Amino acid sequence: MSVGVVTEQSITFKNGIKLDSGRILAPITLVYEAYGTLNESASNAILVEHAWTGDAHLAGKRSEEDAKPGWWDAIVGPGKLLDTDRYYVICSNVIGSCYGSTGPASLNPKTGKRYNLNFPVITVRDMVRAQKLLLDVLGIRRLLSVMGGSMGGMQALEWATQYPDSIASAIVLACTPHPSPQAIALNAIARWAIFNDPTWRKGEYKQNPKDGLALARGIGHITFLSDESMNAKFGRRFSAKDGQFDFFGQFEVERYLNYNGRNFVDRFDANSFLYLAKSLDLYDVAWGYESMAEAFSQVTAPIQFFAFSSDWLYPPYQTEEMVTCLQEIGKPVEYHLIQSAYGHDAFLLEHETFAPMVRNLLDRVESGESS
Amino acid sequence: MSVGVVTEQSITFKNGIKLDSGRILAPITLVYEAYGTLNESASNAILVEHAWTGDAHLAGKRSEEDAKPGWWDAIVGPGKLLDTDRYYVICSNVIGSCYGSTGPASLNPKTGKRYNLNFPVITVRDMVRAQKLLLDVLGIRRLLSVMGGSMGGMQALEWATQYPDSIASAIVLACTPHPSPQAIALNAIARWAIFNDPTWRKGEYKQNPKDGLALARGIGHITFLSDESMNAKFGRRFSAKDGQFDFFGQFEVERYLNYNGRNFVDRFDANSFLYLAKSLDLYDVAWGYESMAEAFSQVTAPIQFFAFSSDWLYPPYQTEEMVTCLQEIGKPVEYHLIQSAYGHDAFLLEHETFAPMVRNLLDRVESGESS
Repeated sequence: MSVGVVTEQSITFKNGIKLDSGRILAPITLVYEAYGTLNESASNAILVEHAWTGDAHLAGKRSEEDAKPGWWDAIVGPGKLLDTDRYYVICSNVIGSCYGSTGPASLNPKTGKRYNLNFPVITVRDMVRAQKLLLDVLGIRRLLSVMGGSMGGMQALEWATQYPDSIASAIVLACTPHPSPQAIALNAIARWAIFNDPTWRKGEYKQNPKDGLALARGIGHITFLSDESMNAKFGRRFSAKDGQFDFFGQFEVERYLNYNGRNFVDRFDANSFLYLAKSLDLYDVAWGYESMAEAFSQVTAPIQFFAFSSDWLYPPYQTEEMVTCLQEIGKPVEYHLIQSAYGHDAFLLEHETFAPMVRNLLDRVESGESS
Repeated sequence: MSVGVVTEQSITFKNGIKLDSGRILAPITLVYEAYGTLNESASNAILVEHAWTGDAHLAGKRSEEDAKPGWWDAIVGPGKLLDTDRYYVICSNVIGSCYGSTGPASLNPKTGKRYNLNFPVITVRDMVRAQKLLLDVLGIRRLLSVMGGSMGGMQALEWATQYPDSIASAIVLACTPHPSPQAIALNAIARWAIFNDPTWRKGEYKQNPKDGLALARGIGHITFLSDESMNAKFGRRFSAKDGQFDFFGQFEVERYLNYNGRNFVDRFDANSFLYLAKSLDLYDVAWGYESMAEAFSQVTAPIQFFAFSSDWLYPPYQTEEMVTCLQEIGKPVEYHLIQSAYGHDAFLLEHETFAPMVRNLLDRVESGESS
């Protein structure tokens, strides 16, 4: 069942937060959605974290006519994995994004104009810092769980290390303790594509720089898929068979990336894309610590990790590095390597592969076994 | 020892060739270098094929003052793997390129202007078709071997299937029977980067479109390296440590790609880059056949294959597909999977890993054992 028609909510924190960079970001507005009912002890809340270009619209529809449900509707709703009859499920748009929370397209109170490149560089830790303000206002002292994939997984890791008392468990999918130089290089190419677009004007555009942003998305898109899934989906098919000897003739995969890149321009702000790419690249769970082990020594809640065999953006060995480290220092950790052809995107596409283990963890945490 | 100071040679074929597309390309000029001495029976010639952005300058120096030798000088020269005291070693710049052989920057005899996008789409088979004219003029009826990596390997495969009587052996490194959709997608991004550059002007530029071409090279560069080699070379080091919270601050890997991309603009023509990217993507050893097995049924000479464990552009399984196919139809084939951290570029960087097997093959072929 669906959570039905939902309305996003918004809250503004006048004093904002002090960022990892030392700069103050204030005010901060956070947009969020919430489904289900918070119980009296406020102990049934699950925070779901979105990835790079995601938003707070996790489940349900914005109106009866809405054709497409929220991005993780498959697992959030009455009777679903994150059962809104049992749990109070929250999703908040991260700072730096362009879906309502404060980001580079927001008005800078000092100038009355859009921040654009005056927006400060933010870290994943800063995103979670802002979310903590939201949970305090909602009266949630301890989350039953925090769950997310990719950049969402990084946020879950930050909860586990920075706010250990505030979570009873964490579920981390398709994640990394720190992106590899290869992953950074691919993001660098995406940034470069936008920088090259003369309509970007160092962030001072009136209209999204469409050529550069579409190309940047195309690069990202490749990293979310896998050799195997691309083979199954496109093979070496030509978009127009007679076009093989045309200079501008396209392979099907080429046409698809182009088409999706162009669509992306209508839904995501180029500056937000750049700021969040930077947050991803800078991410290091051990930031400010001597080592990963020192960072993980803060952990008290059990962490359940999922990696996907064909994910070459954040390959399983990177998750395994975290699992081994946690095991070595005696922390409660669980690891599942999922065989999948869907690459990094598997966490969004193959929820049935991890649902049983997540359900099991939530049941155990709820009953107090794992907390 | 070095082959010393070398001079490139040039030959023009007035009638050109009929291309796979059905178009005629005429005249065709081919630039080549040759080292050593062709013996009386013209049986000691080895043709080395270059990759995407390579040239005919395989070994030696252009002048005494030249700081850098030819691109595969490590294996070509007196006493080296391709011993110029024994072999007559030839390397010819492919058509479509920009190093002297006919390409999009050449003058179109019909207009007196540069071809630019009026240049026909060419295939790897067309490149070899043109080279066959050269070998006929040089009086070489049968090559002792044809050797190349990446696009050079594709050319060697075309010799083996299209001109089986003209070779006594083929050596194919870091190659594929047909690039995967993932490899095509990455090239598509590179093309797109150039198309996005307003100074490209649909190929009618006066100066190389530098932003687009540098970015395109950056993408290619990532595919030539590996996760492992990037980790060893760059790690997550920041280019300027204090720049971590600067919007334009760069990781070391980012700075490196940028720097190399900028340099590439000085040495390679954007239209040539586009045409050769297309040739790579269109490549299929089974082109015009019902199956790979039918294509390989033409083969008579032994083929020695090398794949490199960390090559994710043309991963080993793609070479293995060819090896299995050749084995199944009873053709002479040899396969070596080299453990290497250097990715696709390993064939250029780690010649000592394949030299003993190549030497062994050449000795056997020369003595008539394998022919």
